[in-house]
Amino acid sequence: MQIAMIQDKIVPAEELEAVYFDRGTFFGDGVYEVIRSYDGKIFALEEHIQRFANSLTAIGISSVDLDQIRSRVRKASDAAGISNAKIYFHITRGSALRNHVCDADLEPNFFLTVTESEDDSEAKTKGIAVSTHPDWRWKRCEIKSLNLLANVLARQDAVNKGCAEAILVDEAGLITEGAVSAFFAILGRTLQTTALTANILPSITRNFVIRAGKNTGLETIEKSLTLQQASDADELFIASTTNDIIPVVEFDGRLIGDGKPGKYTKLLTQEFLSFTV
Amino acid sequence: MQIAMIQDKIVPAEELEAVYFDRGTFFGDGVYEVIRSYDGKIFALEEHIQRFANSLTAIGISSVDLDQIRSRVRKASDAAGISNAKIYFHITRGSALRNHVCDADLEPNFFLTVTESEDDSEAKTKGIAVSTHPDWRWKRCEIKSLNLLANVLARQDAVNKGCAEAILVDEAGLITEGAVSAFFAILGRTLQTTALTANILPSITRNFVIRAGKNTGLETIEKSLTLQQASDADELFIASTTNDIIPVVEFDGRLIGDGKPGKYTKLLTQEFLSFTV
Repeated sequence: MQIAMIQDKIVPAEELEAVYFDRGTFFGDGVYEVIRSYDGKIFALEEHIQRFANSLTAIGISSVDLDQIRSRVRKASDAAGISNAKIYFHITRGSALRNHVCDADLEPNFFLTVTESEDDSEAKTKGIAVSTHPDWRWKRCEIKSLNLLANVLARQDAVNKGCAEAILVDEAGLITEGAVSAFFAILGRTLQTTALTANILPSITRNFVIRAGKNTGLETIEKSLTLQQASDADELFIASTTNDIIPVVEFDGRLIGDGKPGKYTKLLTQEFLSFTV
Repeated sequence: MQIAMIQDKIVPAEELEAVYFDRGTFFGDGVYEVIRSYDGKIFALEEHIQRFANSLTAIGISSVDLDQIRSRVRKASDAAGISNAKIYFHITRGSALRNHVCDADLEPNFFLTVTESEDDSEAKTKGIAVSTHPDWRWKRCEIKSLNLLANVLARQDAVNKGCAEAILVDEAGLITEGAVSAFFAILGRTLQTTALTANILPSITRNFVIRAGKNTGLETIEKSLTLQQASDADELFIASTTNDIIPVVEFDGRLIGDGKPGKYTKLLTQEFLSFTV
């Protein structure tokens, strides 16, 4: 008899729900998105759906109807009735007895949550401290996959050091991005961030920040920052869907500028928020 | 209201079972082991428990009682009554609303299955074809974690090419290991496999194969193989818990030796199986 065991309880494997055999758990064999709504309006839905489609294609999940995903997001968002919400969803390749290779016709599993946005106003007002961590992630970070253990470990290391985010550093000593965010520096009148050709996630917020930079009259350079450049920057900030822009005022224990959020960071935040209206 | 959605069904998040909020699924935040039994005897249990302990420590899950794990494995194995079984188990950091950082006192989730061993006698008798694939995995492959998407994609690529296993090649052009196996070459009277200092899993079967090699009078070299060395080898084979030793008779379309399992591979298999009795 094939059996399963959950904590101390033995059960016949065939009596268990499919969720226990989700390839998402066995292998992280799935991809996800996180979307924000601002005042009841879902922000950048199409960009997220497009990136989700790219992730699905990259891992060879081909049977997903994107119109259906779009409508599920809207339906769930309406049902939750949360005006500033964080919408998370993933699709895994499906459920089956554990085997790396599986049938091509497995039905994908869709899971979504809508929760209150965790906007951290103190972080936004005062800025945060960040610490660096080796970038242990895999070589396909353009795929927004469920393989996030490297991100979890880096983020936990930052928290252990009293910091709010980990900034990942590759083997060449160059900054890739944050564990859960894109990373930006202001150097004079230049906005600098890692190029998409590096092993990073094509962050949607990053695109809007670059657009905000243009509107603010900043020159943009897409090139990896060294640790020295980051330490010496006039301003630093991180950007993500869930928290848009958060100023970074301390980098590996060193104060950035006067230790307060910088003027361009504030201007970019205002500009960014104008996109969400 | 916080809501969740499973396929097309909307449910209040708080009504869902904890399994839907498993950090194993959200992040691959967990570690696993696979153990074999031969004729009702669990093979190398202590080695697997020790490696599991190392993996748990590496990702900072500290509240697991290893005696309890050991006894669960034995209890489940007895209950299944399968004499040649594959015992899979994982522990994840626990279930919680999705957030990279979580409470330290989360209760870990344990999940185990016992299934029939999938011993492939044709593969063992005739040997298999393998194809190479870039090693896209993260930089902590000594941790047996649930982040296995790179392995899944490599293995699927091999299957698409009519091969049974993918042999992973790092950026320096050196072979690390198979997607789900350790990789060995016989060159003259030498047994060669990747050193544990490379970014590979400390395979338990690998240790037994090396011991078998010594018993068979082979010299052992622990050093990464180049593609050319592998193509030109006298014999090749892969080794894993679930299938012990499987001869490789074709490497990226090129026949190895006379295209049949080699004599040392057969000797090593006999020697290995003597350890399991």
